[in-house]
This record gives sequence, C-alpha cells and structure tokens, in this order.
Amino acid sequence: MKQLRGFTYDEISIGQTASYSKLIGEQDIQMFSALSGDANPVHLDETFAATSMFGERIAHGMLTGAVVSAALAMELPGPGCLYLGQTLRFSCPVKIGDRITVQLEVIKKRDDKQFITMNCEVFNQDNELVASGESMVMASPEKLQIDRPPSPQFKLI
Amino acid sequence: MKQLRGFTYDEISIGQTASYSKLIGEQDIQMFSALSGDANPVHLDETFAATSMFGERIAHGMLTGAVVSAALAMELPGPGCLYLGQTLRFSCPVKIGDRITVQLEVIKKRDDKQFITMNCEVFNQDNELVASGESMVMASPEKLQIDRPPSPQFKLI
Repeated sequence: MKQLRGFTYDEISIGQTASYSKLIGEQDIQMFSALSGDANPVHLDETFAATSMFGERIAHGMLTGAVVSAALAMELPGPGCLYLGQTLRFSCPVKIGDRITVQLEVIKKRDDKQFITMNCEVFNQDNELVASGESMVMASPEKLQIDRPPSPQFKLI
Repeated sequence: MKQLRGFTYDEISIGQTASYSKLIGEQDIQMFSALSGDANPVHLDETFAATSMFGERIAHGMLTGAVVSAALAMELPGPGCLYLGQTLRFSCPVKIGDRITVQLEVIKKRDDKQFITMNCEVFNQDNELVASGESMVMASPEKLQIDRPPSPQFKLI
C-alpha cells in the first residue's frame, strides 16, 4: 500500500513549488453535479450549451477548486494539512477532455500560527491559465507516516 | 419535469438574497475524494482523524465550495450563470451529518460587464459560520426556460 508523505511546517520554505494534474472527463462533470446538486445546463445540457458563449458544455468552475484541494492534500503541504482558505478567479473554461495542472508556490509563512500561503495557478494542456488565486493552509505539525486510505470508486447508475 | 428558472442581470438588485442547503453525508466525502483525488486521511481515515485537532473525520473544505457552486447555479442568479470567481475562508470544520446552508446576498453590480458580486456565508445546523467569502458571477443575459437536466446518480462500488 502506498505510504502518504507530507511536509511539516518547518520543512516548507518560501519559493517551494509543487504540481498536480487531472484529466477532466465526462464522468467528473456528472459526479460533480451529483455531489453538489449543481445542475446548471451549461455543464449538463448539450443543446443549451451550444447556444452559450462557449458553444459547448464546460466543466463546473469549482471542479477546478476540487482539484486544487487535491493538490494541497496530496503534494504540498501534503496529507494531514488543514485547508484554511482559497481565492479563485476562473479565467478560461475547462472543457471535457482537458488535462488541468495545478501549480503551487509558497509565498508566505506565518510562524506564530503556522499558516502557509501559496500562489495557485491552474493551466490546461495548451498552457492557458484557467484559474488563479491563493491557497491558505496549515501544514501538519508532525511528520505523517500513514498508508494511503483506499480510493473510493463510484459507478454511474 | 421541473423547469429551471434563473434571474437575468436586470432582474437582480443589490440586497437580493437566496439560500441553498445540503446535508453532508458519508457518501459525499467519499465522492469528493473519488472525484478530486484528495485522499487526505483527515477526511477518510477514522484512526488518523481521531489524533487530529478535531478528533474525528471532517468534510473537505472544497466540498463546501461545491455546495456554493450549486447555490449560485440553482438559486441566484440561477441556471445559465457563469462562475467568475470565489473567495472562501474556512472557519469551522463541517462534520458528517451536518446540514450546511449557503446564504447569498448581492452586494455589487457592474453594469458595463454585467458582473455581479455576492456576499457568501455558509452556516451549519447550529448556526456556526463554516465558511465565508465573496462569489463573482455573470447572470444569463436572457431569461432561461429549460427543463432541468436529469440528475446523474452514482453508486459506491
């Protein structure tokens, strides 16, 4: 079983970077709708979406937010971190079949509270910026050594 | 079939409010992990979570973000809107079995671009603030009349 490894507050330095990628597929759009209750036809209805400014269905903006969450939890600081806040500006739509990559860079450390601020940019496979903002987290105070919890699997019914 | 109804830019006024609720269940945590790839043990591993500052598993912060997305898409402005940006500060953990309610209030309209800014607060069933920030959206320019797309259903396998 894969071991999870994260960085403690002290192991993280200004300028440190990490990245995390995900291919956005049809099932992700459906799953985000099922999970959130967001049934906006710009994401789900082909005919409606054809009349919108993008001419086709696009992914939910906050699906990119979910991938940012995974970047923080799995890469930097990594497992055991706590999510304190996020700003996100959606600058370009994510389409079905796009591979998005979250790029994180530590820009601030606040020693008294052990808070870390990271610059957060998300690009598609054509290197277009799809979202940007800042991520605020608290790293695990102790070094984490734990097996990766099993990944839940879902099936569309 | 339920008809979707949204507000156009001109129908929205400063001070207008809306709310949207969701009960956060075990399956939502599992589904958010499956969707995003976020396998942080604070969400998935009971034994690890018992040693964390909250003493039990908590929901992913961005699961609250997903529910905010649904509030915008389903209530205000409603279907057909475009999500431009979000700020979120997570102030209190959401636990399994919590019912969270997103409360939106229009605070700014920018006529030249038809952008709308809303204050966004999310409370749990005990009226504790779990997250807060601002939502930036663009309302559909035309009145939307469309059947609600079928809600996808998923099963844990």
